[in-house]
Amino acid sequence: MVPIITAFAASPDRGRGLARDMQVRWAFEEVGQAYEVRLVSFAEMKEPAHLGLQAFGQIPTYEYEELYLFESGAIVLHIAQNHTGLLPENADARARAISWMFAAVSTIEPVITQRESAIFTEKNQTWFAERMPMLEDSIRKRLSALSARLGTADWLDGSFSAGDLMIVQVLRRLSSSGLLAEYENLAAYVARAEARPAFKRAFAAQLAVYEGAVLNK
Amino acid sequence: MVPIITAFAASPDRGRGLARDMQVRWAFEEVGQAYEVRLVSFAEMKEPAHLGLQAFGQIPTYEYEELYLFESGAIVLHIAQNHTGLLPENADARARAISWMFAAVSTIEPVITQRESAIFTEKNQTWFAERMPMLEDSIRKRLSALSARLGTADWLDGSFSAGDLMIVQVLRRLSSSGLLAEYENLAAYVARAEARPAFKRAFAAQLAVYEGAVLNK
Repeated sequence: MVPIITAFAASPDRGRGLARDMQVRWAFEEVGQAYEVRLVSFAEMKEPAHLGLQAFGQIPTYEYEELYLFESGAIVLHIAQNHTGLLPENADARARAISWMFAAVSTIEPVITQRESAIFTEKNQTWFAERMPMLEDSIRKRLSALSARLGTADWLDGSFSAGDLMIVQVLRRLSSSGLLAEYENLAAYVARAEARPAFKRAFAAQLAVYEGAVLNK
Repeated sequence: MVPIITAFAASPDRGRGLARDMQVRWAFEEVGQAYEVRLVSFAEMKEPAHLGLQAFGQIPTYEYEELYLFESGAIVLHIAQNHTGLLPENADARARAISWMFAAVSTIEPVITQRESAIFTEKNQTWFAERMPMLEDSIRKRLSALSARLGTADWLDGSFSAGDLMIVQVLRRLSSSGLLAEYENLAAYVARAEARPAFKRAFAAQLAVYEGAVLNK
């Protein structure tokens, strides 16, 4: 028996690996843990069975034996704490890697999803053109700080960790925006992460789901 | 020697306990760990010494012996993992409490800060009145889900945990909005948390800093 996660039956990102199951798949691949995926439709995500696992009707969830978890950050942390390979051995370094995990979802991702949400819901509003540069400047403020911290290092704090995994997944949301390309070292950091065999396996697995969904239409 | 955290020398929330040092103070009080506070001005937060601790120029930070941490969620988790009182003994229940910590900063807080940021930066824009109801509906969507999950329970998952602490601190940001009051059980949940002696001590400590800042002006 292996852990089971949930993922979109038809991901709105069209297989670009931006849905939050990607973080969890990637973590499983980094530590060499097999897993299964249960696909859920948008309708199923709002039904009581799924809401029992995920109060906000989102994916991914994690199920293993008696344990049910939600929130990609918490699931990645759980995997990292129970396997070798995603957190340093040293207790202080582990705590620092967890700081980066929280920074990813709490400090960097919100300014990025704010821009995405404007594109999805306000594109035809009169104010869209005027707000967009404000939203992009909020993103640049975070990227500048992150770029300054990363400097010429390969990873944020020593070896690749769950902190890098979470930060990279958030930065990948910017791929089509042109914003990431403004920071050469951050673009190289994301490319370095995407070249990892574990990333590639996780990406291929989520893409196969999307391609299957298209074929089955 | 005790841990040292950073906090605003003059908090923009005027002592309402909404700055992120409040989470950390509250966690320290819950577990009975003494701590010291180093106050930083807005100018100091952008200087290299602080940026070395906190790449994004924010508060709080945590320093103890050789360890430096940032992100209130990561600091609260570190405190909870190294003391008794904020995480259940059972490993599965601990992992679930951490899911709620991530939900606080990743799923609930972003829709709340989006509204705050509109009030701070777009209040005089022509679109403000039209956007506000959209932003408040995003918040209601999260609050409805949380309210349904909490039901008639005192806390989200058994005893009070670091998950409740983080969720409550995020909900407290809504106190002046009227939105929290729409969900009776959530308003009672926040009041229940604010009645905890540890919360009260933490709140008084951060208020004293603000009152001191006003007196020193």
